[in-house]
Amino acid sequence: MTERPRLASFSHHGTLKYGLVKTDGVVDLSARHGATWPTLREVIEAGRLVQLAEEANALKPDLALDDIRFEIPIPSPEKIICVGVNFPDRNEEYKDGQAAPSNPSLFIRFPRSFTGHDQPLIRPPESAQLDYEGEIVIVIGKGGRRIAEADAFSHIAALSLCNEGTIRDWVRHAKFNVTQGKNFDRTGAIGPWLIPFTDAAQLEDIEVKTRVNGQVRQSDRTSRMIFSFRKIINYISTFTTLVPGDVIVTGTPTGAGARFDPPIWLKPGDIVEVEADGLGTLKNTIVDEVL
Amino acid sequence: MTERPRLASFSHHGTLKYGLVKTDGVVDLSARHGATWPTLREVIEAGRLVQLAEEANALKPDLALDDIRFEIPIPSPEKIICVGVNFPDRNEEYKDGQAAPSNPSLFIRFPRSFTGHDQPLIRPPESAQLDYEGEIVIVIGKGGRRIAEADAFSHIAALSLCNEGTIRDWVRHAKFNVTQGKNFDRTGAIGPWLIPFTDAAQLEDIEVKTRVNGQVRQSDRTSRMIFSFRKIINYISTFTTLVPGDVIVTGTPTGAGARFDPPIWLKPGDIVEVEADGLGTLKNTIVDEVL
Repeated sequence: MTERPRLASFSHHGTLKYGLVKTDGVVDLSARHGATWPTLREVIEAGRLVQLAEEANALKPDLALDDIRFEIPIPSPEKIICVGVNFPDRNEEYKDGQAAPSNPSLFIRFPRSFTGHDQPLIRPPESAQLDYEGEIVIVIGKGGRRIAEADAFSHIAALSLCNEGTIRDWVRHAKFNVTQGKNFDRTGAIGPWLIPFTDAAQLEDIEVKTRVNGQVRQSDRTSRMIFSFRKIINYISTFTTLVPGDVIVTGTPTGAGARFDPPIWLKPGDIVEVEADGLGTLKNTIVDEVL
Repeated sequence: MTERPRLASFSHHGTLKYGLVKTDGVVDLSARHGATWPTLREVIEAGRLVQLAEEANALKPDLALDDIRFEIPIPSPEKIICVGVNFPDRNEEYKDGQAAPSNPSLFIRFPRSFTGHDQPLIRPPESAQLDYEGEIVIVIGKGGRRIAEADAFSHIAALSLCNEGTIRDWVRHAKFNVTQGKNFDRTGAIGPWLIPFTDAAQLEDIEVKTRVNGQVRQSDRTSRMIFSFRKIINYISTFTTLVPGDVIVTGTPTGAGARFDPPIWLKPGDIVEVEADGLGTLKNTIVDEVL
């Protein structure tokens, strides 16, 4: 199989840029197209993601990999929507005797709750319960409302990975909703890059797994998801208009640290890797917040 | 008491603008300052809201009120965070025997779930359970993280009103979280305008009420809130960095349509007004979505 192009957002000397990541460096696409399309969101909106990748593939790298800092692939999406319980064993983990739910649980994260690949995840002083959740990310290309399941894949521009890092005790801090436990600054990560989506096989039965310090903690296949990618796009677009660059984080397999007895929380120095077939590996270390 | 300035975002011949609303028209501040500060968010970030209002107060209106269409005051805030159950009787309405919660329930709405003053709220074909929730809105001026309650008021730039319109059956559509019932496009409204916040008395004990077709359905005072404005800012900024223009919707009194027996849902032609001391009246009519 030909290697698929990897399009990343990154900073270079403090400037936010995007480009094509090759094995020996990065082709700076912002230098060539930044005036027209300031970020990958506008590239996607213009429908030029694949074309830019092909163009860049013929070029020599402009920047060394050591000189860039990865940022989340869409720096300012209109929406980041996350799917809750979406693998069979995850529902059973809740031990509430309820059957699989008929509609996906959804919550929203702000971009600032995430950091990029190879950047530290921040454990805040308010809690020792920082936990990982490895997930597959879809990025919307063509917008729409009430998108039919049959058409859903034509609305996906690209794929990525997410460590949907969670402050577990703050998820149940209030009477309803997980908002606060899912939105501590820089407790999660998205990346390393976008892989353009052009073939249903890129999604339909791929493995997603999470390792902590090299040990596999989560591993499952997308074919086992309770709510398929098609259903998720259909359901979300029933209530909100999806627009280019919207980010959907599609749910995590069983095996988060909270599910161990006793729970195993992330601690400073830990390395978390989220990997999926064809999408690469999103790696982050844990550090304590410096106040 | 001197009338406080009213700063609105609006469209005029399809262009998004902002200005000072006077009794006989609107002073177009975008024409004067739009190149420097494209929206009221940037005006707030620059700390110029009060100064611009004073400057405009000395000028004659440029536009007739009939020629503008009100938009939500901050068109693209980084965040819109909503507080759930926040008045004593509202907690009792849940009849679950639980004492008042120790932390506020929070959820997030996207800007596109709101419309402006005098614009229709949209009842979607998926549900007949469109409901109103009248609330007070605070807009962040000075950003910050872990803001002390004692300092909280110095971080508020302005106040507004919200009809936090809700599709009630979709709030409980899934196992967790109210996201989908709170995010149908244009089911809520924010406005009519921003009132600069310069005096604690503007918030500490004001009445907020909601009328449907002239009948008062909700009425309470901010002094009775379970979580004070100060506490809300302190709590939210514990997990996320607040930035200028962030919008916080602070919770609704008892008396939403869902609480009647049988429930009284909004229907096409209904007029909902949300009013609070010193903030004006946010008015919207209900229409069925045209597919």
